[in-house]
Amino acid sequence: MATAVATPPLYVQIAEKLMQQMGRGALRPGDRVLSIRDLSRQQRVSISTALQAYLWLESRGYLEARPQSGFYVRTPFSSLIPEPHFESAKMQTAAVGTKGILADIIESAKNSTTVPFGAGTASPELYPNRRLNLILRRIVHRHPDHSARYVFPPGMEPVRRQIARRAISMGCTLSPADVTVTCGALEAISLAIRAVARPGDVIALESPTYFGILQNVGSMGMTVIEIPTHPQEGMDLNELDRAIRKHHVKACIVMTNCHNPLGYVLPDKYKRELAELTARRNVALIEDEIYGDLAYTGSRPRCVKAFDRSGNVILCSSFSKILSPGYRLGWMSAGRYRAEVERLKLVTTVSAPALPQMVVAEFLETGGYDRHLKRLRSTLRLQVEGIRQAISKYFPEGTRISRPAGGYMLWVELPGRFNAVKLYHAALANNISILPGTIFSATGRYRNYIRINCGHTWSDVHDRALLTLGRLCERIR
Amino acid sequence: MATAVATPPLYVQIAEKLMQQMGRGALRPGDRVLSIRDLSRQQRVSISTALQAYLWLESRGYLEARPQSGFYVRTPFSSLIPEPHFESAKMQTAAVGTKGILADIIESAKNSTTVPFGAGTASPELYPNRRLNLILRRIVHRHPDHSARYVFPPGMEPVRRQIARRAISMGCTLSPADVTVTCGALEAISLAIRAVARPGDVIALESPTYFGILQNVGSMGMTVIEIPTHPQEGMDLNELDRAIRKHHVKACIVMTNCHNPLGYVLPDKYKRELAELTARRNVALIEDEIYGDLAYTGSRPRCVKAFDRSGNVILCSSFSKILSPGYRLGWMSAGRYRAEVERLKLVTTVSAPALPQMVVAEFLETGGYDRHLKRLRSTLRLQVEGIRQAISKYFPEGTRISRPAGGYMLWVELPGRFNAVKLYHAALANNISILPGTIFSATGRYRNYIRINCGHTWSDVHDRALLTLGRLCERIR
Repeated sequence: MATAVATPPLYVQIAEKLMQQMGRGALRPGDRVLSIRDLSRQQRVSISTALQAYLWLESRGYLEARPQSGFYVRTPFSSLIPEPHFESAKMQTAAVGTKGILADIIESAKNSTTVPFGAGTASPELYPNRRLNLILRRIVHRHPDHSARYVFPPGMEPVRRQIARRAISMGCTLSPADVTVTCGALEAISLAIRAVARPGDVIALESPTYFGILQNVGSMGMTVIEIPTHPQEGMDLNELDRAIRKHHVKACIVMTNCHNPLGYVLPDKYKRELAELTARRNVALIEDEIYGDLAYTGSRPRCVKAFDRSGNVILCSSFSKILSPGYRLGWMSAGRYRAEVERLKLVTTVSAPALPQMVVAEFLETGGYDRHLKRLRSTLRLQVEGIRQAISKYFPEGTRISRPAGGYMLWVELPGRFNAVKLYHAALANNISILPGTIFSATGRYRNYIRINCGHTWSDVHDRALLTLGRLCERIR
Repeated sequence: MATAVATPPLYVQIAEKLMQQMGRGALRPGDRVLSIRDLSRQQRVSISTALQAYLWLESRGYLEARPQSGFYVRTPFSSLIPEPHFESAKMQTAAVGTKGILADIIESAKNSTTVPFGAGTASPELYPNRRLNLILRRIVHRHPDHSARYVFPPGMEPVRRQIARRAISMGCTLSPADVTVTCGALEAISLAIRAVARPGDVIALESPTYFGILQNVGSMGMTVIEIPTHPQEGMDLNELDRAIRKHHVKACIVMTNCHNPLGYVLPDKYKRELAELTARRNVALIEDEIYGDLAYTGSRPRCVKAFDRSGNVILCSSFSKILSPGYRLGWMSAGRYRAEVERLKLVTTVSAPALPQMVVAEFLETGGYDRHLKRLRSTLRLQVEGIRQAISKYFPEGTRISRPAGGYMLWVELPGRFNAVKLYHAALANNISILPGTIFSATGRYRNYIRINCGHTWSDVHDRALLTLGRLCERIR
């Protein structure tokens, strides 16, 4: 499929070229850059274009102008690597193919000798295992028959109460009855889709979209339409509206906080518009909110559900990215679809495991969640930054890297001539796991993109692996 | 829908009448029954018919003939209550309605003051909680990061190895790689259905069928065809074959060991025929095998998978009925559908909880499973028998009760004039939970049937509740 990358104005092209140079370490913070006249001469552009390029960089905080002296590099170099292009492709509905590559990805995720830049996993030591185990032992002692009953939907009351209490930080006023416990967030999303759409229906997705959701939607016989998604502004709402009217879209799935793989946190303004548009068009809005607690700066970002006035938003989350992936403890707040979601949960997996619900309820109640979160966030942020720097150092010129506002994924755009699937295979042969961009699309997009998972504690092995990846790039184009 | 109950020959009618009398305690083991001549006079039938009736009862072990003396009652009286009729209805495909009643059932299952004859739950003290907790504590101590990783499909190797090892007792030779871990058996069945059928496809089911499976199939947009199912011989294979040829059936779901609700264990002969027929017709056979370990007598019955030669049988089971419902630990052996099932598992609930897999693996390995099973089986058998006796005492004349070969469900047929849904509502108003037969059918059958769960430790409260149910019958017809 033809993908149209909007060509930016000349001064932006010049500016981005400079960012590449600075990002690769040729220029350091504090360095004075070429004079406008020299830049104009070097790049063979007009003085006015050269000036515009500097002003553009200044407006983004990369350069600072010092009176009578010129422009100086302001920001640490790696943040100067440009972000991936915003690609808008012609929208079309598509069936989701079942990708053979998924099995490989999981195989390499299970192999502890593979460098884990692939599946979205993190180092076990990042989770609060000691504290969780303390609580677990206490519960087993206090309630020896903790797991001797079915916990029917919506799940145990204490954990639902704690989840509702914490939802205030997401901008939501929920009661325990609004919360349904699930086996991870993906089950929540799966139940949400089944509650609002039938096989053959069209589901609108961001592009790129986390491959698990793509595959989930496809496995239920629905087709998808991929809406162009801007790395700062999220889904293009005009395009979404057009898709809704043209294709009778039944549901729209979004990740507006710490998007996987793009990394952005959507400003509230767009969240509100998204909630309003979907409500007006009577399209259910399914919100995947598993990384929101991992936004790096400011207060905890609000979720789209915070702007829901009609019960149209189905908020889905889990504790897999924060406390424990092995607990399989997810939850959802399904708004007006609650009864249907609970019914589907009952007839699909009956109930969620008991012990994790009891442990997490007590963990949330006795405090320490926020302290843990703070530590986890800053650790992950450092890991992400370390990997960004290494990529900017080792990867071919023209590589663009996302600048995530949270979470631990990097979205890397290689220059167009590189084939990410080839790189994926070459990497795997070198015992390095990465994800090729193509699995984040149902229409074959992102051939020159890869996703890098940064969840694991940084080590020399990782640094060497990125060096290897950079060298492999040269071989596979 | 019209339901045809085959009228049995006159001598069987007479015999069943006698069983009713004996079952209600009018005659006790060791008692001499009427002479043939007296029976003929009392029932106004020929001598020959009276003799046939006695011989029929003798052939089933209810009476014994003593030379020169007559016929004597041989069996404890409650086992003489006749079993429910084998009803063969005209087959037709049907969409599964979503039953509002399900929500009520779950509500009452959650209410600890309701007498729990409804949902298929058992007393917490029946599970080996103490031993499981010992193991759990040991694992938490030994592996403090037990839950800090995703366990991707097919699940942890040690528990799959133990499951494969135990499958020998089911007549199956499985390797650990043949086993996929799931969130309970219902997820396994759900994955199996999705792996082999598309929305709109027809699935063949036993009639009656456990309502969870009916609802599960319906929720995925498939239609069902209910195959007449004999309480000893299982699904009518001629009818199944006819349905397959007429309706392009994609899968067939059966429970051949300790059927829920009928209670039978299908003889091997029929299991083999079932496996052969479905393989020949290329219809996937999904086997729900959660109660097989609870067969009361003889060696552990084989499962249909034991007769599978082509990988066409998908065996689904769990530890929810034996070790712990709250662990949500199920498993499946999906034969030639394994890769697809693992893929679907990955994109639906990603993985199964870690800790239960570790605990159950060790429980199975260190022994004690068989000892526990023996105790559990005999306890449940006594509970079932106690409830059978109480029903035979308290319920209206003409009531027929299943004679389960295992598990802990009773299937009770009230005389045709009684409406089980009315009884269900009246019972609920009296704080007694039962299941009306109608939810075991997609076509409105079993209006005068109820299912009684016998999983809970027998008490006076239960006895009184059955007395109340018996009285309510009189009021609701």
